[in-house]
Amino acid sequence: MNAEEFRAAGHELIDWIAHYVEGVEHYPVLSPMQPGEVRAALPASPPDADAMPDSWADVMADVNTVIVPGLTHWQHPMFAAYFPANTSYASILGELMSAGFGVNGMLWATSPAATELETLMMDWMVELLGLPDRFVSSSAIATSLGGGVIQGTASEGALCAMLAARERITHGTSNQVGATGNLTAYSTAQTHSSLEKAAGIAGIGRDMIRKVDCDEAFAMRPDALAAAIARDRAVGLTPFFVCANVGSTSSMAIDPVPEIATVCQRENVWLHVDAAMAGMAALCPEFRFVNAGLEHADSYSTNPHKWMGVQFDCSLFWVANRQSLLNALSILPEYLKTAAGDAGAVIDYRDWGIPLGRRFRALKLWMTIRLEGVASVQNMVRNHVLWAAEVLEVFAADERFEIVAPVNLNLVCVRHVNGDMATDSLITTANATGKILLTRTVLDGRSVLRLSIGTRATTAAHVHAMMALISDLAEPVRQPVI
Amino acid sequence: MNAEEFRAAGHELIDWIAHYVEGVEHYPVLSPMQPGEVRAALPASPPDADAMPDSWADVMADVNTVIVPGLTHWQHPMFAAYFPANTSYASILGELMSAGFGVNGMLWATSPAATELETLMMDWMVELLGLPDRFVSSSAIATSLGGGVIQGTASEGALCAMLAARERITHGTSNQVGATGNLTAYSTAQTHSSLEKAAGIAGIGRDMIRKVDCDEAFAMRPDALAAAIARDRAVGLTPFFVCANVGSTSSMAIDPVPEIATVCQRENVWLHVDAAMAGMAALCPEFRFVNAGLEHADSYSTNPHKWMGVQFDCSLFWVANRQSLLNALSILPEYLKTAAGDAGAVIDYRDWGIPLGRRFRALKLWMTIRLEGVASVQNMVRNHVLWAAEVLEVFAADERFEIVAPVNLNLVCVRHVNGDMATDSLITTANATGKILLTRTVLDGRSVLRLSIGTRATTAAHVHAMMALISDLAEPVRQPVI
Repeated sequence: MNAEEFRAAGHELIDWIAHYVEGVEHYPVLSPMQPGEVRAALPASPPDADAMPDSWADVMADVNTVIVPGLTHWQHPMFAAYFPANTSYASILGELMSAGFGVNGMLWATSPAATELETLMMDWMVELLGLPDRFVSSSAIATSLGGGVIQGTASEGALCAMLAARERITHGTSNQVGATGNLTAYSTAQTHSSLEKAAGIAGIGRDMIRKVDCDEAFAMRPDALAAAIARDRAVGLTPFFVCANVGSTSSMAIDPVPEIATVCQRENVWLHVDAAMAGMAALCPEFRFVNAGLEHADSYSTNPHKWMGVQFDCSLFWVANRQSLLNALSILPEYLKTAAGDAGAVIDYRDWGIPLGRRFRALKLWMTIRLEGVASVQNMVRNHVLWAAEVLEVFAADERFEIVAPVNLNLVCVRHVNGDMATDSLITTANATGKILLTRTVLDGRSVLRLSIGTRATTAAHVHAMMALISDLAEPVRQPVI
Repeated sequence: MNAEEFRAAGHELIDWIAHYVEGVEHYPVLSPMQPGEVRAALPASPPDADAMPDSWADVMADVNTVIVPGLTHWQHPMFAAYFPANTSYASILGELMSAGFGVNGMLWATSPAATELETLMMDWMVELLGLPDRFVSSSAIATSLGGGVIQGTASEGALCAMLAARERITHGTSNQVGATGNLTAYSTAQTHSSLEKAAGIAGIGRDMIRKVDCDEAFAMRPDALAAAIARDRAVGLTPFFVCANVGSTSSMAIDPVPEIATVCQRENVWLHVDAAMAGMAALCPEFRFVNAGLEHADSYSTNPHKWMGVQFDCSLFWVANRQSLLNALSILPEYLKTAAGDAGAVIDYRDWGIPLGRRFRALKLWMTIRLEGVASVQNMVRNHVLWAAEVLEVFAADERFEIVAPVNLNLVCVRHVNGDMATDSLITTANATGKILLTRTVLDGRSVLRLSIGTRATTAAHVHAMMALISDLAEPVRQPVI
């Protein structure tokens, strides 16, 4: 494929993407493809080496007939499943530019712009979200060694936080054998599964994650946290890490970070705050309750790729003091460390995460902020929160449903009063229409319908259509047997 | 940014990228920017929420004046540093399409096409590279549970291999505390630093990576490996993992995998083969010596993003038996595991790596194979290898240089006979011209100039220009003092 062919195909693809995004509503939200169907529609073997390359038209024919029908459309306005992963045109262009450059930002020197734009964007986001100054990478406060990095996912952020915490508690011996011996970490049963996964990866042990009791809103009870820590200390274990959730996956529960931070400070335990989805609400000043207590957090994670129109993957990860993180992950031998690097004059981001190689991900964040503007993202977030409140009212007025968790932002959790079978059946039937996509979760041992409003294309009319569909499909209240 | 604005900006950007790629030769290879210069040229703070969004022209003005000068141009034909990260037009379009879809392939159900195309591409690559059948995901052999996944980087592949190996040796208790106790792993001093990093992350301990002795070609000595394992067993340690390099970073050394595999089988130790760069040579049948011994490897890693024209990130990772990997990384509670999932009827790739969320990376591999064709990639690889042999001859005929390692593929390692200062000064001076980019490494304690031929745009004329430049800048042989 030469430059001329690229231009022609590229123009076509740009138009095709605009057409896809504008028309995504016309597809079934959930792919109707059965297991193996996509694969079976494509050649089992690659082309022969001496075959002529396929044409762009050949490839697009397969895209249209095989790939698109095999997609579950995350940008569909009726996508109310999982969590949002909303995108924007500006972000798509940012990804395209990054691909066009084909540079690797593993070190500052391997493309200074990739590193410096990333650091700048992390600092811009501190301002846009109203986060504490301690997370600013370029802080003028000499004693501050905070800073941020773009990770691929909040899972990686949670793992890095845990590794940094392990480094701090083991006084710099986290990379030695035996450093994982008797460490205990704390979260709630609502915490994202990535935390258990991280504890397994790090050799700390999944069973060393204590599930601290929650209150009736599924938020961590600080007194239960203090008690769990005391219990572990009493038997000679070493509490080292707490993960507080601001917006849990199942129900958007918000742990009381200020009170948790008090416990962590007293106990000298690392506090990581995972606000992968909900943290983005802080773009709107009126929702900055999600930032409560962050001035005492050791690390913080939130994802523009969930609720800011920035293409996945773009997960922001900050630490209040970068030293533990770098000591845990730096792969530079001692004699190559520089005073400038330690002081943060030059950042080599390969030492801030798991992978060595790095894409130029800051471009899509920069372009989204500049080309979409902050106000348009704020409007989107405000609308989603407003509509979730309206959905809550509709459910509350319908005798068939019980609200099972507070609606803190844009997620509504309900169940059918007839029980789990009625809830499950409603979700399955609704999803099978192809007109909406909902997720099932379990809270207090019972099935729950989660309705997450977060797609950029969603309008008030779509929300009304969602509610009409759910109302149509929900079975009537079963009369008790007399 | 609406659809019309996206179309207009997108067309411009496509043309701009073609122009960048075609003209990349005219930039200095190494960015001349000083630390802080990129950042200082951009606003310290984000735009106000009530500011109008910037125009595409505004953004492109900054791209042209700030971002591009801040790039080190990895696609430059005179880029001879690090390792190749060559791209192609087809791959750029694959990334663009993936961004346009904005789907998340964490589960099969969240976009069947993303999972099934990925599995198919992993199987296609088994055929294209001539790898053993044991790595085929869809193998009809009922006892085979092999399979592959696209990881972001070979670093992540090495970590996943180590976690799977830990799972196997601890008989399914790798996620429990204490599972990292007395495990020892083996590689050479030439092994990529990601291995030490992985051992640190996994809590096994960086110091538990034994550096097995090399022969004069910097390849692992199997007898030394056997001796190291025996030594560790004798003191009660548990050897569990060997990482063999096919194409080490410093000198493209190739460990003798067949002989190493014999030791591993006898000792019941997991064998991971890291061929991140060199493995791609197997696209050409005449270079399939790089595959020697893979029929006995437990896991294998090689990167189309290095030497096949597929955009970073696209690192292929295979296991001969997926069970240990899934048990180590699965975050599904036991009661959600399905027979279909275990048997491989449906793959949920979130259980095959560190992150939960996943981009649709198979598109760029598929598009590159189809639109660029296999023969064009083979030609590129053949040319690079041919030119490296020519470079070797030029150096060999020049009394100022000593060859310090065999040229196994496309990397030439030499030093100046006048010593480290002369070698270092040559590299620094050459890089400062902006006309070439070389990397320095250390072998046998002495400075080495690495010349890696791997950019897609490189031609024979560029290689001649590289050699002319090096010859001009190298100092004459210093006469011994009489």
